[in-house]
Formats: sequence, C-alpha cells, structure tokens
Amino acid sequence: MSEFATKLVNGVAAEHISLADRGLQFGDGVFRTIKVIDGTPIWWARHYAKLAADCERIGIVAPDAAVLLADLQLLAPTHHALKIIITRGETARGYVAPLDLQPNRIVQIAPLPAYSPQLRSEGVKLRICRTRVSWQPALAGIKHLNRLDNVLARREWKDTSVFDGLMLDRDDHVIEGVMSNVLAMMDGVLCTPDLTQSGVAGVSRDIAIAAGDQLGIPSAVCKITLAQLGQASAVWVCNSLAGLLPVRAIDQLSWPSMDRHQALIRAFEAIKE
Amino acid sequence: MSEFATKLVNGVAAEHISLADRGLQFGDGVFRTIKVIDGTPIWWARHYAKLAADCERIGIVAPDAAVLLADLQLLAPTHHALKIIITRGETARGYVAPLDLQPNRIVQIAPLPAYSPQLRSEGVKLRICRTRVSWQPALAGIKHLNRLDNVLARREWKDTSVFDGLMLDRDDHVIEGVMSNVLAMMDGVLCTPDLTQSGVAGVSRDIAIAAGDQLGIPSAVCKITLAQLGQASAVWVCNSLAGLLPVRAIDQLSWPSMDRHQALIRAFEAIKE
Repeated sequence: MSEFATKLVNGVAAEHISLADRGLQFGDGVFRTIKVIDGTPIWWARHYAKLAADCERIGIVAPDAAVLLADLQLLAPTHHALKIIITRGETARGYVAPLDLQPNRIVQIAPLPAYSPQLRSEGVKLRICRTRVSWQPALAGIKHLNRLDNVLARREWKDTSVFDGLMLDRDDHVIEGVMSNVLAMMDGVLCTPDLTQSGVAGVSRDIAIAAGDQLGIPSAVCKITLAQLGQASAVWVCNSLAGLLPVRAIDQLSWPSMDRHQALIRAFEAIKE
Repeated sequence: MSEFATKLVNGVAAEHISLADRGLQFGDGVFRTIKVIDGTPIWWARHYAKLAADCERIGIVAPDAAVLLADLQLLAPTHHALKIIITRGETARGYVAPLDLQPNRIVQIAPLPAYSPQLRSEGVKLRICRTRVSWQPALAGIKHLNRLDNVLARREWKDTSVFDGLMLDRDDHVIEGVMSNVLAMMDGVLCTPDLTQSGVAGVSRDIAIAAGDQLGIPSAVCKITLAQLGQASAVWVCNSLAGLLPVRAIDQLSWPSMDRHQALIRAFEAIKE
C-alpha cells in the first residue's frame, strides 16, 4: 500500500465503500474518534472497550483490538484524529440481516482540529439548541451512526465563537453538547447527565469523573435542568479531541471566573490511559 | 455504461461511495422505496413530493424529478424495487457541513420481494416489538437514514410467518410497523397513528386514506394504544412494495375474518397515481 494512505477498509487502503454497506443504508454501525499524540492513541484501552461494548449492544461482532492496532500501524499516525467506524456489514435492501454477517471496519486518520489554547484558559461559550436529543433507551449511551440529531443541532449556528451547542431532551433535562459531554459542579458534587434514555457517553466523560475522584470530588449521574445548571459553581464540556474545557457562558448564563475549573482540567490531562 | 447496471451514483454506474459521504458517517440523508411495474414507478409524483419534502425538512437540496427520471431511464427497470437515497454529500469528519454542499444521489434497482398472494387474502401476522420507536419531533415522519430503531426491532424475531413487528412509542402509543404503516377501523373511522413525534409517514399510508375517502370512510390521525387497537373492527398494514394488507393477528389479538378488509384494499389497489 501507498505510504500516504490515510483510510483503510478492512485493512486495505480505500477511499470508497460498497453501496450495500448498512452504515450507509441505515446508519447501522458505531464509531469512535481518538486523539493520537506522538503515535500513541490516547486512552486506547478505554476507547476499545467502549467500541466493543457499543457493538455488543446492537449485536455487531467487534473486531479484535489487535486487528485495529494492526490497521493503526499501517496508517502510522503521528499527531492525528483517528476515526474508527464499524458497520454491521453488507446486505441487500431491507432491515433484516444474518446474525453472522461480516462487519466492515473503516479506520482513517485526519489532521487534529486546531483548538486555541485560549479555550482552555478563558473558557468556551455554548448556545442552547432548539433541536432536542432523541429519546431512545435502546441506543442511549452508544456512539452509533444515527447522528441526525447532532447534524440538525449543529446547523443552528454559524457564529464561530460558539464552541458547541447544548442539547436538552423531551423532559427539559440537559443531556450533552452536540460534540461533547457536559459536567457541572453542584453543591460539591461533580454531576453529569443521566444518559440512559438519550445521548452519547464519551470516554472523556469517564476520564473527567476519574480526575474528580483523584481530587476527592464525589461524582453523580443526575437529571439536570437548565435552571439547575445555572446554579452550578462550574461547568465543563469534554470530548476526546478537545479534552476538558471550562464553560464561560451558555446563552445568558455565565461563569466569569475560570479559576475553579483548572484543578479538574489538570487532573484530567494527567490521565493518559 | 453497461446495460446490466443496477446502481447509479450521481447518474454514473457504481458499486461504491466515498468514505466521506455523510450518509455513511452520520446517516445524514433520506430515502425512498418505490415499486416499478411494467417500467412504471407506482405513485411516482407522490414519492417525489415526499422525497423533496423530507430533504427540505433536514436542509438537503433535493435533485429535480427530471434528474431522477433520467437515472431511471438508464436503469430501465421492468418489475423492480427502486431505491433512491439522497445524502447531504461529502465532508471531512465533524458534524458541520457547508449549506451549499452538493448532495449525493444513489439510485438502484433490485428484484421485487416475492410476497405470497395469501398475505392479501388470509391476512398477515404481526408481533409486538420490545424496541420502542425514538421520540424526535425534528425527524418524525421523515424517511431518513437513521434507521437503527428498525434494525434493532427487526432483530427481535426469526419466525418467517411473522410479516412485521409493531412498534410503540415511549407513551405506549402504537406508531408503525418496522417496515410498514398501520391503519385501523375504529367506530367507523379509518384511524392512523399520529406521526408528529416519531415514525415514518409512508406514501402508501396516504393512498390508504385516499382509498377510504373514495369509499366514504372518514379518516383521522389518532393516538392509539394497544388496548384500543384490540377493539378495532379491522387493522391493516401497508408499504409501497407490499401494498395494503389485512392484519389477522398481533400476538394475542386476532381478527378471524378478512371480509371487512377487502373493500379498502381494492380501492387502494385501484389508485395508480
């Protein structure tokens, strides 16, 4: 294969996938986005465990970690965003699929997004999206390929000073950002929304909770309204590429000082595995 | 192009699509399944209108009808299932997409499913799915590519005597079949579930309502529980390939006689445009 390949399908350099792939037909698959630094995929074991768990929830046989790591060796990323998509495989039209269908494995690398260091020091601005997250307990928590909620929510703003959009559910609970998870310090507890009915549970959310634990901060999964979020002493968003970032404002809500955010961020950044 | 081509991407014979296509990445697109008989796509104008409306709801510029009909002429179907997918187009990783992105257009033909004539005369059996339909008013009614609800529900049974699975929403209302819409005669009214919060509004559902109208049967969009469905004097399911079929049983509920179903079916089948 070319030394310049950035995309593999089932271990082979490729730019295309079959029209019969169920990822295209139905969004029938899962994915992960992983930061690679100095050739090392950050939090790899956690990402792989989540990929395997997500596959299991929707009945796809996940590839072995060794197979994915061999793909990674072929792509030889240095500082990159690694994206892994696993689809259920290829079938004709129609929802039914054989239980032993061979999944398709798409592994690709792209440049890391260029986030300004100011996001970390000065905090990010969020907006509240009109688009609600879907209610679907059968899929909640999974990073699957049915992402129209996020696509529609992301279409709501063009202002590049807005880092992310905050999404609520049918019951007016805060669930997540369009591309991030949310955490809030409330009465001394690091609270993160309940993702059993909606939303995606990212690996970086687990890292933030682990960072809190190292600092002796108890954590809890909570149902959080916007009004309650407004009472939080600090709010953060996180994902695997941007890391943990302090939130400075959400529409009219604001947190003028970023001081109380920084200890958690430092602990978060110290967790490499 | 080969005279044997059965798949076109943007008017060109193809078996593959770019890994950058947002249909694959996010299920970011819509589709239609259309029955072609003697070279004529049945209910074409209605299907095209629904495709264009679905595209508009999620901000995709639909191709002109003439472009799709030119594709159809290249494929030259006789008796086939025609499937049209329109995706938002191709972008790098990430939810954001330019507003003027060029959509991808996938047009393909496949053999028609071989439905037994007994389904029409003796009725079909449904089962009640454990998988609920997602709540998402921003997407409800649209035949979009985020179809994991249907994929998971379809995995619940292998019994080939079950024609389709019935799906309820979070509030225990009957919404649709995995691959069909549902209609029920209740107190002399042809009732069909409210699809403003969940589900897909198929063209065949409109045809069934139009058929009822021709017979002087009033129709209504209703919130229907399973208990209420059990009281219906007749229940049907429909889609564009199978047509309108009488329902004989839904788990323990049963309708022993198919007599009162047939007038609506005949009127439905008489509507060609």
